[in-house]
Amino acid sequence: MARHSRLFVRGLEEMRHHFGEKADQLVARVSGISEEFGKLNVEVPYGELYTRTVLDDRVRELCTVAALTVMGHALPQLRLHVEGALNCGATKEEVVEVIMQMIAYGGFPSATNALLTAKEAFDDWDASGASQTSRSV
Amino acid sequence: MARHSRLFVRGLEEMRHHFGEKADQLVARVSGISEEFGKLNVEVPYGELYTRTVLDDRVRELCTVAALTVMGHALPQLRLHVEGALNCGATKEEVVEVIMQMIAYGGFPSATNALLTAKEAFDDWDASGASQTSRSV
Amino acid sequence: MARHSRLFVRGLEEMRHHFGEKADQLVARVSGISEEFGKLNVEVPYGELYTRTVLDDRVRELCTVAALTVMGHALPQLRLHVEGALNCGATKEEVVEVIMQMIAYGGFPSATNALLTAKEAFDDWDASGASQTSRSV
Amino acid sequence: MARHSRLFVRGLEEMRHHFGEKADQLVARVSGISEEFGKLNVEVPYGELYTRTVLDDRVRELCTVAALTVMGHALPQLRLHVEGALNCGATKEEVVEVIMQMIAYGGFPSATNALLTAKEAFDDWDASGASQTSRSV
Amino acid sequence: MARHSRLFVRGLEEMRHHFGEKADQLVARVSGISEEFGKLNVEVPYGELYTRTVLDDRVRELCTVAALTVMGHALPQLRLHVEGALNCGATKEEVVEVIMQMIAYGGFPSATNALLTAKEAFDDWDASGASQTSRSV
Amino acid sequence: MARHSRLFVRGLEEMRHHFGEKADQLVARVSGISEEFGKLNVEVPYGELYTRTVLDDRVRELCTVAALTVMGHALPQLRLHVEGALNCGATKEEVVEVIMQMIAYGGFPSATNALLTAKEAFDDWDASGASQTSRSV
Repeated sequence: MARHSRLFVRGLEEMRHHFGEKADQLVARVSGISEEFGKLNVEVPYGELYTRTVLDDRVRELCTVAALTVMGHALPQLRLHVEGALNCGATKEEVVEVIMQMIAYGGFPSATNALLTAKEAFDDWDASGASQTSRSV
Repeated sequence: MARHSRLFVRGLEEMRHHFGEKADQLVARVSGISEEFGKLNVEVPYGELYTRTVLDDRVRELCTVAALTVMGHALPQLRLHVEGALNCGATKEEVVEVIMQMIAYGGFPSATNALLTAKEAFDDWDASGASQTSRSV
Repeated sequence: MARHSRLFVRGLEEMRHHFGEKADQLVARVSGISEEFGKLNVEVPYGELYTRTVLDDRVRELCTVAALTVMGHALPQLRLHVEGALNCGATKEEVVEVIMQMIAYGGFPSATNALLTAKEAFDDWDASGASQTSRSV
Repeated sequence: MARHSRLFVRGLEEMRHHFGEKADQLVARVSGISEEFGKLNVEVPYGELYTRTVLDDRVRELCTVAALTVMGHALPQLRLHVEGALNCGATKEEVVEVIMQMIAYGGFPSATNALLTAKEAFDDWDASGASQTSRSV
Repeated sequence: MARHSRLFVRGLEEMRHHFGEKADQLVARVSGISEEFGKLNVEVPYGELYTRTVLDDRVRELCTVAALTVMGHALPQLRLHVEGALNCGATKEEVVEVIMQMIAYGGFPSATNALLTAKEAFDDWDASGASQTSRSV
Repeated sequence: MARHSRLFVRGLEEMRHHFGEKADQLVARVSGISEEFGKLNVEVPYGELYTRTVLDDRVRELCTVAALTVMGHALPQLRLHVEGALNCGATKEEVVEVIMQMIAYGGFPSATNALLTAKEAFDDWDASGASQTSRSV
């Protein structure tokens, strides 16, 4: 495995901030298939984009939840970012509210599937005790 | 024209808050083709969803910008909601930041087309003097 | 739980007409996560749209099957609406025909996945004896 | 230009039934770029699918309007099939109703763009006098 | 079962070239639900398109992998075409490279899901011993 | 304007190889709105992905044409990459062939719109004399 760039290190730190220990599992899973894919997955969204200070992480995660909801074909990623939203200070009510707002933009089927996926993420999050230790207000 | 429901009145008021005088033009354009379609367009997103207090209007509009960016086929609506975001207190930098974040979720083409559309909305907004009178902080 | 609006009551009755006892299960599942989401899901498509008399329910359900086929990411909803189509008087042959027509608009993969999903719905429908009691001609 | 297959001849006849003289213009435009593409465009949807008798042409065109509405990126084709729906016996009210129903499946932006496109098709259709000569009931 | 057209025979032969014995299983599965659908599925992509000589099969399969990756909702078909690509002479590295390139066009979620699907196809392909007997270079 | 990274310089060189002098125009247009967006647009697809040697540029561009065709909402980018394909050694016949193959995956409407867009790119390319100086075989 190549030594990591500073951008990668910064991105992985950002990922851990959003997803906790799942960050490393995700990167390992993807990098195990393609080192380069794993590198880009850490460096571009997390190293380059989420570390910028124009928006705070809670708003960024809610925007990502909105996008993944209307896309419809990215439920594993939605589930992860629902946890990310909670870890970055959003409440469950806010996550549900964003998904519900997406009824207007992507229709009921994708919003319904997103809502059911969010519920699974909520249950996991509660079971893991993350709600006790997160930075949620 | 049928008398409007309380939900419609509340929704139209919310639309005006987001889009100014364009709200009435939009409703008139759609209702001129189908009264029922215009009614739903006011009542569902604006009467039912945007008036709820779980999220503030600025975050709602940024989430809508995110969704419309990745959808790719809704540039007229994106243009409108870029103005809505500005009118609800988002900065141009924040709008650009959300669109740029969407590179990671919907790819470069839809994000690029969204960025160029946002620029047109920014120019209109500046020309109209809305930046002087909006509630932007 | 809030008392239901007349629109909700009318919508739920319409849903039962399309989906039988599954209607109440669906609403309960969604409303258990978000009361407001469940309310909109009943009121908007079923209370507002499907109750209008411009089109009969069989044609409406076939149009919905067409849309869900090309969308590709809404197979749970497609499965439900295949049952809805049968319950509203469409034949299995007509459902297959609409899905097959969608090859031309959304391509083979989404149409193939829709066909396989429809087959599951057909088998369920036969097993449930719905075919004996529905209004199918 | 190669001699046409029986499937092509049957398909082109079906296209003329739906789109009148525009059928030949469309085929000429596409075939002028790629003979094979034009051949498939006539043979597959029109020669193979629309000529089957399981569904009548009015219902087929309404299903196509539904699909093109939710796809969002096919407005030129939607415009054509709105005319096709009218030529096959659907009313303007039915076309609008299908598009409005799609609010529930694809959201407001794609349905709104479809409604505005349908209005253009209606105006063309009225101006062309097609409404006098079509088989509309 | 109707006697097959020459186009069907040619298409099925082409399918076997891409997918080996899975070709017949696929056709049987679809044709068991709808004879006509199975016929079109063989004749149009494989009888008409893949047999043309303008592009070789390896490039065709890589282009299909690209398309199915960005579509996002066609993972069963993607899995099949990853095998098709390998059987037509592409390497695993090339398949991964195409999927990775699609990050730029469809974003990370659909590319990640495609990568994980490709890995499953690779493992199957290795287990089946196809790698020993294919025409891969 | 910040000094460019080595990745940016390498990416811009790659872009010029694909798009000639239009590369700089594109980067200037995007960077004029957002410096960071322009940077990512050069660095990620062109600096990171297209410069890798696993696939040659002609195959990469044909894969991109395939993806942009089925996406349907990225015609400006498709037009650009049709030129890119030609500049990287693909023939017009090959570009048309890829687009035609996409009928099977994304349906006729998106493939038709892609074909018409490719024709515009071909005409531009011929008019510009690029066909005289490109590396096309």
